[in-house]
Amino acid sequence: MLVDVVFSPRFLDREMLPGKNAVVIDILRATSTMVTALANGALRIRPCLTITDAFLCQSTSQEDSPLLCGERKAQLIPGFDLGNSPLEYTAARIGGRSLIATTSNGTKTILAATAAKEVIIACLLNSSAVADHLVAAGRDTVFICSGTNGEVSYDDLLGAGCLIDKLARGSDDLTLSDGATAMRDLYRLHRGDLAAGLLSARHARRLLDIGLWADIQYCAQEDIFSIVPVYQDGIIKKLPKRIA
Amino acid sequence: MLVDVVFSPRFLDREMLPGKNAVVIDILRATSTMVTALANGALRIRPCLTITDAFLCQSTSQEDSPLLCGERKAQLIPGFDLGNSPLEYTAARIGGRSLIATTSNGTKTILAATAAKEVIIACLLNSSAVADHLVAAGRDTVFICSGTNGEVSYDDLLGAGCLIDKLARGSDDLTLSDGATAMRDLYRLHRGDLAAGLLSARHARRLLDIGLWADIQYCAQEDIFSIVPVYQDGIIKKLPKRIA
Repeated sequence: MLVDVVFSPRFLDREMLPGKNAVVIDILRATSTMVTALANGALRIRPCLTITDAFLCQSTSQEDSPLLCGERKAQLIPGFDLGNSPLEYTAARIGGRSLIATTSNGTKTILAATAAKEVIIACLLNSSAVADHLVAAGRDTVFICSGTNGEVSYDDLLGAGCLIDKLARGSDDLTLSDGATAMRDLYRLHRGDLAAGLLSARHARRLLDIGLWADIQYCAQEDIFSIVPVYQDGIIKKLPKRIA
Repeated sequence: MLVDVVFSPRFLDREMLPGKNAVVIDILRATSTMVTALANGALRIRPCLTITDAFLCQSTSQEDSPLLCGERKAQLIPGFDLGNSPLEYTAARIGGRSLIATTSNGTKTILAATAAKEVIIACLLNSSAVADHLVAAGRDTVFICSGTNGEVSYDDLLGAGCLIDKLARGSDDLTLSDGATAMRDLYRLHRGDLAAGLLSARHARRLLDIGLWADIQYCAQEDIFSIVPVYQDGIIKKLPKRIA
């Protein structure tokens, strides 16, 4: 199995995706929030590129009043129901509901990855479950870091490194690209204190500045969920659990 | 001073270069060999994209019999005088001579960086001298990793990290991109044994397989030279030493 990493969607060449699994990572905070929402009982998430798309999607939805979720510049969007903090996505708030989400980086990256065989939504919170799924799938895999406004973001590099480290421990038939090896090494450097590691991201320090240290600490946790969400036919849903 | 890194020339956007300093890095082995050649007395190096260009350049040269240097697939090119091992470039062999060089990655990267204000040739061997020069210049700086056949190469990531670490120690007015911070951290992880760190590169393991461990050990040395070569008007020459 070949394993590669794309440091920012700006460097994504769609031709590298067909036949492979793509893993989309936006640690702070889109994929951490999506994984939390689905683990806490949201039925599905429809990612939209723009705010207008999201409103349009809500108004034409066949579903029972889907919630509008997401951010611009890390803030709640006017008229939306929820922002982009995973801490908002409690079972009481989103259990049994459908969500429509638009964020600055993560949702764009998901929609840019559709040429892949399977598009998987990952973060630290579900990293072991995703690594196990990738080992079982046995396909060449590309980790796509969502970055921040086109720039490389350190939090996503750490997230990719965590997943690659776990994938490498689960499989003895793995060929890592040099970029993948580098991300794994970066994760190993920080795994004793991932919250501190995330603060190497300029974006994390901006979140800290607006009072979101609790979000960073939350997103730094490994393996509090065992779900594997995939994007298919316009919808993110969790895969049914495999029977061991 | 803004500091960014380009992980492979495939990701180089020429529009990011005007007004900035570009630092080209190909640790194994093109820039290590060029720095060695100039430090050992070569007068100048003319980089060429192709083997044909190199022969043409030699046949039309006004200079006294320039030497043809370089590699394809890490091997000496038929009809050339020297390969790409820095250990070949002794004062006895190249002192006082002009060189014409074509390599698989490094020379291409140099020629792709010409939109920059200054194009500097760097490796571990002259890393402190280059860092000092960059601090004195005070310009925004982009480190360009030459990679291997378009792919990211771990040796160049470590080289960029070493230069960024030294630059950061020399200046207190530095803003690192997240990619630059990550490369600095990767270098810090390996600086106790850089030769072993270089072996994380798949390209390094190929060199090892064909008996070139001595080249890897040589290129892993920091600061054995204090020259700063720059590419200008088709020629790589060392800058005159600044007076302290």
